[in-house]
Amino acid sequence: MAAGMTVELIPLAGIPEIREGDDVAAAVLSAATAAGLAWREGDVLVVTHKIVSKAEGRVVAVADDTEYRMLAEQEAAAVVRRRGDLVITQTRHGFICANAGVDRSNAVPGTAVLLPLDPDRSAHAIRMRIRQATGRDVPVIISDTFGRPWRRGLTDVAVGISGMAAVLDLKGTTDAAGRELQVTEIAVADEIAAATDLVMGKAAAVPAAVVRGVTWPAGEGRATDLVRPAAEDLFR
Amino acid sequence: MAAGMTVELIPLAGIPEIREGDDVAAAVLSAATAAGLAWREGDVLVVTHKIVSKAEGRVVAVADDTEYRMLAEQEAAAVVRRRGDLVITQTRHGFICANAGVDRSNAVPGTAVLLPLDPDRSAHAIRMRIRQATGRDVPVIISDTFGRPWRRGLTDVAVGISGMAAVLDLKGTTDAAGRELQVTEIAVADEIAAATDLVMGKAAAVPAAVVRGVTWPAGEGRATDLVRPAAEDLFR
Repeated sequence: MAAGMTVELIPLAGIPEIREGDDVAAAVLSAATAAGLAWREGDVLVVTHKIVSKAEGRVVAVADDTEYRMLAEQEAAAVVRRRGDLVITQTRHGFICANAGVDRSNAVPGTAVLLPLDPDRSAHAIRMRIRQATGRDVPVIISDTFGRPWRRGLTDVAVGISGMAAVLDLKGTTDAAGRELQVTEIAVADEIAAATDLVMGKAAAVPAAVVRGVTWPAGEGRATDLVRPAAEDLFR
Repeated sequence: MAAGMTVELIPLAGIPEIREGDDVAAAVLSAATAAGLAWREGDVLVVTHKIVSKAEGRVVAVADDTEYRMLAEQEAAAVVRRRGDLVITQTRHGFICANAGVDRSNAVPGTAVLLPLDPDRSAHAIRMRIRQATGRDVPVIISDTFGRPWRRGLTDVAVGISGMAAVLDLKGTTDAAGRELQVTEIAVADEIAAATDLVMGKAAAVPAAVVRGVTWPAGEGRATDLVRPAAEDLFR
């Protein structure tokens, strides 16, 4: 990553409640215009999965806690751990998270929001629309809020990616003393998602943000590049 | 978190190689002055643990890989998992990470850098010095780069904290529809650490950054607030 440049995290406020069939890219573009944002080459757009899922109709009626738990298990490809009401699952995409990513916060009461079926594809579609409208090819990350083992509190991570690699590979890179770096893979897409959570908040309705000035790893990554293969994972 | 404000991640470049007995706060203040940064109320300072450890003399001679592995195991309070050369440990502070946080990158050749003995205390000392010099009471986070289970790539996290709470507790907070949020604890200190890694890089010698415009949870947190208690952790 190029160091030395200030990076800006710019929230895109004022996006209205999104419903099935709504155009997320258009809503983002309107919010950016309202914020006086002129898109630049090098910007990265982060959109929370919730508005993407809502636009794609990934919303299910859920009457009560029991129905919610049943739905989460239906959505899961596998249950990794279970304790009481807490179910850690692997989703069909491969992500490991609580309740298969099914969430009732910021959902219409009596409903729950699922993850997009193919979040990389959703990210790509938004990226193409932004490019068409602005002439800028802006990488797009779709974010969700996941827990972690070992560490309290949740952080935002990337569940969909278009226009950048997910991971920066530093293999063969040396430090100032010429020693090969011990740390070789940086989860830049996750760090960008975590950074934008700082301007989005959870209770506030800020479902998108632009990251300006960041250097991202080039490539056409997929969010599943961030999933540690089961054979390498000591903690499943 | 107050949404709607742009957050800036400002790298502090030009900090010279730090040696035992050096004054990290003075080096940070000089770099800030050189960068033309006028400290503001509300700024957060993030410093990588490596320069703090070096200043505190937490550097050990390591001749080869075997000695390095022995040192990492000595530094660990417990081994959580082991596979080949990969050892996941719990440090004496309580953090779970590879090799007890002992790192040979960006260390003088033939040496390894340990974690600070009491990173919260180190953060507090830097905060007091910044306050004395600038009149600003700036929360300080000491960061390190940790791996995660399930997800590829590493991200920066907080291993030392002074002047803010580690976790934002949203218990009882409701979404726009009045529903209590499902996600109740946000690891803001870790999100801030991850964000600043975007302007620090790994190979570049940028060991500090200022975060401007972020709203942090008030309180006097400790980095171990971010350690999930063993009894609640399904993945040890």
